[in-house]
Amino acid sequence: MKSKVGNVIVGQSGGPTAVINSSLVGVYKTAMDRGANKVFGMLNGIQGFLEGRYVDLSNHIKSDLDIELLKRTPSAFLGSCRYKLPEIKDNTEIFDQIFARLKEMEIEYFFYIGGNDSMDTIKKLTDYGIITGSSIKFMGVPKTIDNDLDITDHTPGYGSAAKYIGSITKEVIRDGLVYDQQNVTILEVMGRNAGWLTGAAALAKGEDCEGPDMIFLPELPFDLEAFKRKVKELHARKKSVVIAVSEGVKLPDGRYVCELSEGVEFVDAFGHKALTGTARVLANMIAKEVGCKTRAIEFSTLQRCASHIVSRVDITEAFQVGGAAVKAAFEGSNGEMVILKRVSDDPYICVTDTYDVHKIANVEKKVPREWINEEGDYVMPEFLNYIRPLIQAELTPIMVDGLPRHLTLND
Amino acid sequence: MKSKVGNVIVGQSGGPTAVINSSLVGVYKTAMDRGANKVFGMLNGIQGFLEGRYVDLSNHIKSDLDIELLKRTPSAFLGSCRYKLPEIKDNTEIFDQIFARLKEMEIEYFFYIGGNDSMDTIKKLTDYGIITGSSIKFMGVPKTIDNDLDITDHTPGYGSAAKYIGSITKEVIRDGLVYDQQNVTILEVMGRNAGWLTGAAALAKGEDCEGPDMIFLPELPFDLEAFKRKVKELHARKKSVVIAVSEGVKLPDGRYVCELSEGVEFVDAFGHKALTGTARVLANMIAKEVGCKTRAIEFSTLQRCASHIVSRVDITEAFQVGGAAVKAAFEGSNGEMVILKRVSDDPYICVTDTYDVHKIANVEKKVPREWINEEGDYVMPEFLNYIRPLIQAELTPIMVDGLPRHLTLND
Repeated sequence: MKSKVGNVIVGQSGGPTAVINSSLVGVYKTAMDRGANKVFGMLNGIQGFLEGRYVDLSNHIKSDLDIELLKRTPSAFLGSCRYKLPEIKDNTEIFDQIFARLKEMEIEYFFYIGGNDSMDTIKKLTDYGIITGSSIKFMGVPKTIDNDLDITDHTPGYGSAAKYIGSITKEVIRDGLVYDQQNVTILEVMGRNAGWLTGAAALAKGEDCEGPDMIFLPELPFDLEAFKRKVKELHARKKSVVIAVSEGVKLPDGRYVCELSEGVEFVDAFGHKALTGTARVLANMIAKEVGCKTRAIEFSTLQRCASHIVSRVDITEAFQVGGAAVKAAFEGSNGEMVILKRVSDDPYICVTDTYDVHKIANVEKKVPREWINEEGDYVMPEFLNYIRPLIQAELTPIMVDGLPRHLTLND
Repeated sequence: MKSKVGNVIVGQSGGPTAVINSSLVGVYKTAMDRGANKVFGMLNGIQGFLEGRYVDLSNHIKSDLDIELLKRTPSAFLGSCRYKLPEIKDNTEIFDQIFARLKEMEIEYFFYIGGNDSMDTIKKLTDYGIITGSSIKFMGVPKTIDNDLDITDHTPGYGSAAKYIGSITKEVIRDGLVYDQQNVTILEVMGRNAGWLTGAAALAKGEDCEGPDMIFLPELPFDLEAFKRKVKELHARKKSVVIAVSEGVKLPDGRYVCELSEGVEFVDAFGHKALTGTARVLANMIAKEVGCKTRAIEFSTLQRCASHIVSRVDITEAFQVGGAAVKAAFEGSNGEMVILKRVSDDPYICVTDTYDVHKIANVEKKVPREWINEEGDYVMPEFLNYIRPLIQAELTPIMVDGLPRHLTLND
C-alpha cells in the first residue's frame, strides 16, 4: 500500500509551449500515483501564488480523458507569469510570505515548470528553504521552445516547435514554387538570442524538398550587404528563394535588423520595442533592390501553440520530466532540475537525470559555432542529427466537431 | 471491357490550396479508370501549355502510394498561373495556337482546376471550340480557398482553409490567456473581397473556447472609430481580446485599412501595393491609443498550404469534383463546371452536378448580409451552420522522418 506523502504544488512559468501541459500531467499523475494527498496548481505561477490564487488539480482533472485532453492542450493550463523573485539579501519579506503560505497549505513538494527565469525561482526558494531550515523540496521541470537551457540535452517544447517550423517551412516552399514567377520569401522565426528554432527550418530539406536557401541565426552578426548580394545571386538562378531568419538577428553594430524599419513602431505596454518585423524589413529591402515579388511570413505565436502538430517524442519527454521531478523530490532531491541526457542519436535513446539548479539558472545555451557553416548562412549536418530525433512521430489531437479539443480550467 | 477514349489534359490555375492536388488525382484516376489513353498535365496552367510545357502524368503518378501522397501535397503539383486569355474578338491567334497544339496532342478532353479566372478560360475555350467546330470537351473543376465561386454551394479548398483558421484561432486564443496581463491580438485573414475565410475564425468558439471577440469581413465598410471604441470596451472588461479582420477591409471612403500604414511600402514586382499589414496597422493604433500589449498575426500563405491539417470532407469532395468532371465530359458535357449541391446540413449530404460555366465565370460570391450581425462585427449562426460540415474529419499526412511527405514532379 502506498504511503501518503502530503501535499504537492505545481506551477507553470514563462512562455507557453505546445506540450507544457504534458509536463503538468506528468507531475500530477505521478504525484497522485505515488500517494500525494493533494496536488495544487498555482495560477499564473509564483505571482498568482503570492496573491493566494491556486486550485486543487483533482477538481479539474477528473478522468483519463481529461488527462489526454490536457496533454494536447497548448499554452499553460494554469496560466503563466514572467515574475522574477528578488535576491534574498534584498528582500526576505516576499520569501517569508511564500513560505508562510506553503506551510499553511502543508506543502511538502514544490514543482515549477519553466525556463531560465523559472529555474532562478527554484534556486532562490531552495536557498531560502535551506537558510530557514524548511523541509520542503523544490524541483525544476524544464520547458521552453527556445531550447536555451544549459546542461539538459534539450528542453521539452522545443521538438514540437521545431516540427511545426519544419513542416510549415516545407509547405511554404511548395507554395512558393506554384507560379512561374520569381519570388523571394523571408520567414521570421522566434528566438531572440539563440538560433535553435530558426535552424529547425533546415528540417524541411529532404528528397521531396530542397529546403530553405539560407538560414540566419542570432548567434552571428548579420551582414546586410552580404545578405543582399547572396539573395541577388540566388534570385539570378532560381525561381523561388526562401530564407529563414531569427527575429533576433543583429547588425555588427548591435542594432536589431527589425530596428531598420522606418516609421513603424511596435511597442508593448512597457514601451519595449517588439522584436517583430525583421522579415518585413528584409523583404521590403529585397523588393526595392531586386524588384521581385517578395513575401514576409512571421511564424509568430503559432510556433509555441500549434498543438495540432506536436512531436510525440517531445510530448512524451515533457510528461517524463514531470514524472521524474516528482520521483526525485519524493526520494529526497531538492534544488535540482530534471535534465535530459542523450545516450545515442540512432537509435535515439534519452534518459532523465537531475542536476543542481544553481548551475542552470540564468545561463543561456546557444547553438555552437561549429554547428553553423563558415559563411554563417546555414546549419551543419551536426545540427540536423541533433534535432531530427526530437521531432519524430505524432500525437494527434482529439478532434471534436472538426477542431482540436482542449481542456480548460473552466471545464 | 472499357473502350479507349483518347487523350485527356488537365491544368491547375490560380491560387493554390491544400487540396487542389486531390482534384488533380480525381481527374487523373477517373480518366484512367474510364479508359483514357493518356492523361497529360499542363505545367503552370494554360500559360505553360502555350509554351509547350506539359507532362504525361503516368510518368509521375506511378503507384497507389503516389496517389495518396499527391492528395496530401499542398500547392499545385503541376504549377499554376494567373493568365487570363484575351477576348476571342480581340485575338484569335492565341486560341488557334492552343487548338493546334490540342489537335497535335490528340486531346479530346480538357480539364481546368481553378477559380473565377480559370472558369473564364474554360468559357472562352468552349466558345472558340464551338465557333470552330472542335469536338474537344472543356470542363471546369472548382477550386479556391476564397469560396467566392457562384452557383456551387462551396468550393473545394475552402473547408481545409477554414479548418486551419478555426484551429489556429483557437490555439492563439489559448495562448493569449496565459499571462495575467491584458493584451489585444489582431488576426489577419486572407480574402480581398469576400469574408468567407475571415468568418471561419468563429469556428474557434465552443465549450472550451469563447472564440474571437469580433470579426470584420470585407463585405461591409470598416468603421475605424467604432472599432477603436469597441476594442476599448472589450479591453476594459477582459484580459485578452482577439479580433479577426480580413486583409481586404476598407474604410467608408474606399481606402484599404492597410493603406493607413505610414512609411511602409510593400510592393510586388508589378508595383501593386500588397494587401498586407492590415492587422499591424490596427494593432499599432490600439497599442498607441489603449496602451496595452498588442500583437498582429498574419495567417499568410499558411492558410492555403497547411496540408498538415486538412478537412477530410474537403479533400474527399476535391477528389469527387475532379472525378465528376471527367464523367460528365466523357458523357458529352462541354463548357460546364462541376458544382456541389448541398442536400442537407445535418446529416450533411452534398452531391455533384454540372452547370453552364458562362454563368459562373467572373462572378464573385460574397457572404450574404444576413449572415453578418447587425453591428457588422461577427457572423450569424447561419454562417456557422453552413461552414461546420465542411471542416469535419481529418486526413492525416503521411509522415516520413517526422515531417509530412509530399509528391513532387521531380520524384
